[in-house]
Amino acid sequence: MRTERVCYACDARIDEPAARCTCGEPLWLDVDVDSFHWDDVADAPGMWRYEPLLPVSEPPDGLFDAAGRTPLMRTTALDEFAGARVHLKIEGENPTGSFKDRGSALGLAAIGAGDGPANSNGAVGTVSHGNMAISTAAYAAAAGVPCVVLVPADIPDDRLRTISQFDPTILRVDGDYGRLYEHTLELAPALNAVFLNSDVPLRIEGQKTTALEICEAFAPETPDAIVLPTSSGGHASGVWKALTELERSGAIDDLPRLYVVQAAACAPIAAADERGADEVSRIEGDETIAYSIANADPPSGTRALAAVRDTGGSAVAVDDNAIREAQRTLASRAGLSVEASSATALAGVRYLTETGEIDAGENVVAVTTGTGLTDRLGSPAAETISLSDLKARLRAVL
Amino acid sequence: MRTERVCYACDARIDEPAARCTCGEPLWLDVDVDSFHWDDVADAPGMWRYEPLLPVSEPPDGLFDAAGRTPLMRTTALDEFAGARVHLKIEGENPTGSFKDRGSALGLAAIGAGDGPANSNGAVGTVSHGNMAISTAAYAAAAGVPCVVLVPADIPDDRLRTISQFDPTILRVDGDYGRLYEHTLELAPALNAVFLNSDVPLRIEGQKTTALEICEAFAPETPDAIVLPTSSGGHASGVWKALTELERSGAIDDLPRLYVVQAAACAPIAAADERGADEVSRIEGDETIAYSIANADPPSGTRALAAVRDTGGSAVAVDDNAIREAQRTLASRAGLSVEASSATALAGVRYLTETGEIDAGENVVAVTTGTGLTDRLGSPAAETISLSDLKARLRAVL
Repeated sequence: MRTERVCYACDARIDEPAARCTCGEPLWLDVDVDSFHWDDVADAPGMWRYEPLLPVSEPPDGLFDAAGRTPLMRTTALDEFAGARVHLKIEGENPTGSFKDRGSALGLAAIGAGDGPANSNGAVGTVSHGNMAISTAAYAAAAGVPCVVLVPADIPDDRLRTISQFDPTILRVDGDYGRLYEHTLELAPALNAVFLNSDVPLRIEGQKTTALEICEAFAPETPDAIVLPTSSGGHASGVWKALTELERSGAIDDLPRLYVVQAAACAPIAAADERGADEVSRIEGDETIAYSIANADPPSGTRALAAVRDTGGSAVAVDDNAIREAQRTLASRAGLSVEASSATALAGVRYLTETGEIDAGENVVAVTTGTGLTDRLGSPAAETISLSDLKARLRAVL
Repeated sequence: MRTERVCYACDARIDEPAARCTCGEPLWLDVDVDSFHWDDVADAPGMWRYEPLLPVSEPPDGLFDAAGRTPLMRTTALDEFAGARVHLKIEGENPTGSFKDRGSALGLAAIGAGDGPANSNGAVGTVSHGNMAISTAAYAAAAGVPCVVLVPADIPDDRLRTISQFDPTILRVDGDYGRLYEHTLELAPALNAVFLNSDVPLRIEGQKTTALEICEAFAPETPDAIVLPTSSGGHASGVWKALTELERSGAIDDLPRLYVVQAAACAPIAAADERGADEVSRIEGDETIAYSIANADPPSGTRALAAVRDTGGSAVAVDDNAIREAQRTLASRAGLSVEASSATALAGVRYLTETGEIDAGENVVAVTTGTGLTDRLGSPAAETISLSDLKARLRAVL
């Protein structure tokens, strides 16, 4: 399979292990998909079913087999709240509880095998103190690959403990943490290592599989829309790349409209879309409960904007009240616990049906990107009763 | 489908919504499986694939579709540690993070549909402050069924918040919490409600699907052994029931040996097996890190003992050091985060290969029953560096 890097924006082809084009935009991998059809899916576990579309041929066993193939569930209980036909793609059912496992699995499989696109000495790094750190460290452990995780100096102990389970080298970096993301990508080639940051070519290839699974589940139809919580724009880039590869190969006829959703307090992509700009600029973001998607300067923001424009969707923002209400509704009506950032997907669908961008009869896939079981939500209100009152209280309640 | 309750121990048939036989042992449902073969599995999501073997025909959509169908992963990286060919069944990839979802989904689907075996006014209760409480509340929310969760008065706030997300009625019970399990089963018929406790007939039917998935993955072969962390004995009962139903129908030729593993500090089933008793008696248990399987008086303990005897397995105990080592090994070598109680499965395999009960060449399925991502593990040790030292430190580490 070809592994040359290409720029979606200026079509440059770069024959080096770079993450960025000379034009400044993020690169992705040229993958040969002229001939893919649904009959070509592999008889393989998890996301490796789509091996014909992925630049890795023989992933390790173990954890790699458990990445992806998450449930896609039609959830009629949410239709009224959302205003459309809701399908939920449950990314929290990945081994480390978030969508990041797809990119980590692809990346570590490539690095472990010394495959062409990895260009690595068999080591991996990442800049994260959240889901990506946990996920990268887990797959590095499973692949037996040395791993370094760069975290901010003030990371809470709880978070550090969760990452520590997988025994990576953790470095707390004292200084401007925001700079590290691009800085490590620049350093990586000289170190002969791969920094598996959020929007690098290998991670994008893994993140394609979210969309591949959604489209296969609907085949020969396609969903009308996919609604995706968005931070760096890496996941949106992977979804877009998968959709265009499927269209090019003839596996789907119509592109679902891709909508990216951000928290209103920190929504640079939605802001750019609203003002009709072609480029996403850095903003001054505020705090939001959806902290894991609060990215004021998304490295693949412009690419995500191109994705929604190309597919006929848009970038929208929802405020913390709407996010909170969607999160509560997911738990109390659908039994699904998601982190606040994931609840933006359902809040986004509601917003888009209210504004008329999505119609009531349309099939919409809301991607819930991470589990809420690791958060501590809700109000711990409970009545205390004595054993002798039990029967009477139960009769009243049940 | 027949829904009569039968006693595995004395063959009594009970035509009432009871959980216990007049002989004192737990009941389960008579299910007609004379004719099941692997070709008969349904084209349905998750665990509903095995609908021909389950007493529920039309589960609701949404969360119910996401229960079960967890990854079964061959994990060569653990063979040396375990001393056999290790396969891990990852029950943490259920929507609420544990195996309990199978029984909750089956139970709430029956209750929601008003199906025969439920005998319910459309309400559910459970006695738990852990995985079972979270799981039951989630599926009750998804089914739109009123739910009451009985918790001990001293439950930590964190736990209460996790359960609260799904909006059940939570009652803190002041008094002997240990008595509540059987007490609620006695009260249930008069309340016309189902207490979906750990070893009741409906939950057992759902828990069968763990074994059905394992056996289908190996078909036409069978694994040599299944190793299961065990508390109440409900899951072990479900696995045993599934295996015997598969054997009776001709879908498998040989029964895998079932081994149940307990924490040494609280191991009444292992103690009974070791002394050659036919009944499990209440013990005085001590504390263990595997707190979620520490049950000093397991309601289906005697049934679990019958299960391991019938299949040629045994009940064993592993101490906290062995559990801790297995938990660390799962995370650092296989990238899998499990709660301490789940790590007993791998510790159990290691113990059983050391004692010669399992051979090096045998295929062993260790069932990891719950995710560890909700725990806070590991030691939060990390070096702090300045940005100017970054390149040098990375070069040293990678």
